[in-house]
Amino acid sequence: MAQVATESATTAFSDRLAAAVERKRSQLCVGLDPRVDLLPVELRGDPPADAVARFCRGIVDAVAPHAVAVKPQLAFFEALGAEGMRALEEVCAYARAAELLVIVDGKRGDIGSTGRGYAAAYLEGDAPLGDALTVNPYLGRDSLDPFLSACRRSGAGLFCLVKTSNTGGADVQDLALSDGRTVWMQVAKLVDEWGEELVGANGLSSVGAVVGATFPREVGEARRLMPRAVLLLPGVGEQGGTPADVARAFTSGPASGLVSASRSVIYAYRNGGGDWRASAGIEAARLRADVWAVSGW
Amino acid sequence: MAQVATESATTAFSDRLAAAVERKRSQLCVGLDPRVDLLPVELRGDPPADAVARFCRGIVDAVAPHAVAVKPQLAFFEALGAEGMRALEEVCAYARAAELLVIVDGKRGDIGSTGRGYAAAYLEGDAPLGDALTVNPYLGRDSLDPFLSACRRSGAGLFCLVKTSNTGGADVQDLALSDGRTVWMQVAKLVDEWGEELVGANGLSSVGAVVGATFPREVGEARRLMPRAVLLLPGVGEQGGTPADVARAFTSGPASGLVSASRSVIYAYRNGGGDWRASAGIEAARLRADVWAVSGW
Repeated sequence: MAQVATESATTAFSDRLAAAVERKRSQLCVGLDPRVDLLPVELRGDPPADAVARFCRGIVDAVAPHAVAVKPQLAFFEALGAEGMRALEEVCAYARAAELLVIVDGKRGDIGSTGRGYAAAYLEGDAPLGDALTVNPYLGRDSLDPFLSACRRSGAGLFCLVKTSNTGGADVQDLALSDGRTVWMQVAKLVDEWGEELVGANGLSSVGAVVGATFPREVGEARRLMPRAVLLLPGVGEQGGTPADVARAFTSGPASGLVSASRSVIYAYRNGGGDWRASAGIEAARLRADVWAVSGW
Repeated sequence: MAQVATESATTAFSDRLAAAVERKRSQLCVGLDPRVDLLPVELRGDPPADAVARFCRGIVDAVAPHAVAVKPQLAFFEALGAEGMRALEEVCAYARAAELLVIVDGKRGDIGSTGRGYAAAYLEGDAPLGDALTVNPYLGRDSLDPFLSACRRSGAGLFCLVKTSNTGGADVQDLALSDGRTVWMQVAKLVDEWGEELVGANGLSSVGAVVGATFPREVGEARRLMPRAVLLLPGVGEQGGTPADVARAFTSGPASGLVSASRSVIYAYRNGGGDWRASAGIEAARLRADVWAVSGW
């Protein structure tokens, strides 16, 4: 743990990510969305938070050879209260020890003093929970300053919501601006600016963007608007996106896109039967290979 | 606790709020932003989460006669990990037992299945943490559906970010749309629509809006765009807003605005000296009276 923390303090997130992508030849991020009602039967006798922690540790073991990152979804841990947060801490430490990057999916964003609380909670301190955090841009630049400071100081990363994978995202993100662009395109421009000062040795910024794989045309446009951003691409699998839909994300380098799949990997056993860990590993390996192939690297 | 949960399941949030406002003749919500480095010296020997819980309980005791609600800011509890979440649970239960409404300030928002996790965590179950939750609109209507369901099922409330009190909010919220309005005005229109089916007996919806007291003109415009919404008005006090700045919020009824003050109340002892509880009580009483006077009720 101490060694991981020291490394994270000295190397930019985007450079750590790029090194992991090239070492593993993988652009896969596995989402940890532990829903108690979907856990394997063998875990259901445990108290919910213990079952969730065991499940996530098993998934980490299974996908570690194939993925570069895991993305714990905070809501599912928060739903279990204080015990859930303890499970989150355990799972994050376990994943980092397995040399996976941890992208905490909290979609946080709040004004100044509160934002500092979140940055401290997730990205800083002696043993930060995660290497990166997802954030929401609705409150603007000053709400993200504490997170940007954490990136500079501690080598953390951010992924800012830009164009999300759900259909309802259009309600706000697709509104037409007076100059003909949409709200999400302007947010993309802001993300590009915010990330300027955090470009690593490999040319990628530690300020990335969330762009839904469910909107292939927008993935290409997002790449054009944010040439240095790592695009975190949810929506492959259960939500209907395919690896081919995100091919254009990778034109800025092998690590310039991360495909995030959650349910299709971690609950793979529910479709095929068999051991849940083995099923997750097989699905992760398959998706890793498919994505690597379309990425063109 | 059980009785509170039963009551919350049967009466709409907006009606419970209206009853509290009329009973206490108060439109004050006290923000619980427990920053460990600002706590009274007498609490600093305790482990941080214990100190935070003791501090918040003391503030609850002090402000309960003067306020209708408290608003715990999740970031400050999350910053303390699992112990912080335990402190949050304790503080929320304590405030509800003191007959204060609890508005959990999490600014949450995520796609479908994840949103259900948040709704379950904060608004539902046998002993929900809070009566209402702040949410972020960037992901659109479908991201808020799980919360709207919780409002219908459990008598919970929402406060959707519309026009926030910080200057950086302009980056996204003030963007000009093709029809001449701004993004926040369109979000206001959406909030009005989302709240239509949740209008209580008193004419107010359980879907409210966060509008910064730091922008008085926008408060009036927000009232016009969302005639049935309870406006939650942060920014009075440390951020520079005054009770007079929010007078126009109250034209839809005594409970149609809630002034939210955090640091100026809970850390009042740092300005005037004296006992921290007494100072918070005095400041809450003063602000309650000032707001009630300008509200015109």
